[in-house]
Amino acid sequence: MASQEIEALTQALARLPGLGPRSARRAVLHLMKRRESALTPLLRALEKVNENLSVCAICGNVDTTDPCGVCADPRRDARLLCVVEEVSDLWALDRSRLFPGKFHVLGGRLSALEGVRPEDLNIAGLVSRVAAGGVDEVVLAMNATLEGQTTAHYLAERLESYPVRLTQLAHGLPVGGELDYLDEGTLAQALRARRPVA
Amino acid sequence: MASQEIEALTQALARLPGLGPRSARRAVLHLMKRRESALTPLLRALEKVNENLSVCAICGNVDTTDPCGVCADPRRDARLLCVVEEVSDLWALDRSRLFPGKFHVLGGRLSALEGVRPEDLNIAGLVSRVAAGGVDEVVLAMNATLEGQTTAHYLAERLESYPVRLTQLAHGLPVGGELDYLDEGTLAQALRARRPVA
Ligand SMILES: [Zn+2]
Ligand SMILES: [Zn+2]
Repeated sequence: MASQEIEALTQALARLPGLGPRSARRAVLHLMKRRESALTPLLRALEKVNENLSVCAICGNVDTTDPCGVCADPRRDARLLCVVEEVSDLWALDRSRLFPGKFHVLGGRLSALEGVRPEDLNIAGLVSRVAAGGVDEVVLAMNATLEGQTTAHYLAERLESYPVRLTQLAHGLPVGGELDYLDEGTLAQALRARRPVA
Repeated sequence: MASQEIEALTQALARLPGLGPRSARRAVLHLMKRRESALTPLLRALEKVNENLSVCAICGNVDTTDPCGVCADPRRDARLLCVVEEVSDLWALDRSRLFPGKFHVLGGRLSALEGVRPEDLNIAGLVSRVAAGGVDEVVLAMNATLEGQTTAHYLAERLESYPVRLTQLAHGLPVGGELDYLDEGTLAQALRARRPVA
C-alpha cells in the first residue's frame, strides 16, 4: 500500500550492504518522520557526493576530487607505494593511519575461476608508476586468499626488473581473511612485520 | 582522510536505524563504486519522497500524498477505525493486509514518566472523526506495554459516550512487545481474536 515513491526508496536502500527489506522500511520511516534532521541532510550529502564523484586517474581510488585526497596529500611519502585489490582495502588502510605512503588500486584480483586476467586489472598503471621512478618500495597488500597471493606473485614478477624493494604484508593475517574486515591491531602488526617478497 | 563530502554522507547514513559507522562506510563505498546502479537511483528516490512528503491531515500517516494512500483508498471500510501509537504500527498492520479498515495515528502514548499528556497526542482528531459519525468500531491497537494499555483505557473513556464498538487486540501478544516487531501470524491472531474493551 506504500506509494510508488516510498516503495522505490525502500528498494534503493534495501540494496545497500548491511540493510535488508525490513531495515530499509524502518530507515524510510525514520527519514520521513524526520525530514529536517535526517531526510534533507542525507539528500544534500548524496547530491554533493554524486556531483563530485570521480575515480582517481593516478591510483584508482574513488573520491570527490581527482586526483584523490590521498594522491594530492603532499605529506605522504611518494617513495612508498601500497598496492591493494579494492578501494575498500585502500580505505581500511587509510583509516588506520598506519601507512604513510601512497596507494594503487588494482580493481580486483587474478582469478582463473572468474576469468579475471592481468589485463582486466589496473596493472599497466602500476607498472607505469613504478617505471616512472621515485618509488623505493612497493608493498603488495593483497588479501591472504589464494587468489590474492597469486596476484601478488604475478605482480612481483612483473616488477622484478625495476629497482624497487617488493614487500608483502606479514603473515599473521587470518587465512582467508580480507583486509577490509580486519581490526587495526592486526593491520598494524602486519604492516610493521612486512617482509621482502621471497 | 575521506573528503568532507564523503564524511558527511557517511554520518548521514550512520544515523539511520540498523546502520552504524562501519556499515555506513561500506554503504558509501558501495554507492560510490556503483554510481549509475546504486547512487543515482537512491538519490532520485530520496528527491521524490522529499518533494512529496506530507503528514496526512486525516490520520497522521506519513506518505507522499495528503490524504495518504490508506485514507484515499475507497476499498477500505471507513466504518472500521484502527488507532495506533505510531506511524510504524500503521505500516506494520497495513503491510500485513489483515485489517480492511482505516487508521488513526496518535503520535505516541500517554506517559507520566516522559510527561506525555493527552493534549500531546492526536486524540482530539480521533474524537472528531468518531463524533462525525460513520464509524462502527474503533480498534484500540496500542502496544502491549503499561503505557500502551493506559493509553487504551484513557481512549476508551474518552469515546464511551459515542455509539461505537470499542475493541482491543487480543492478548497473546508477547508482554512488553511492540506491534512493529511482531510477525504477521501473531498480528493475524491478535486481530482475529480482538475483543470488546471491558
Ligand atoms: Zn589517487
Ligand atoms: Zn491518512
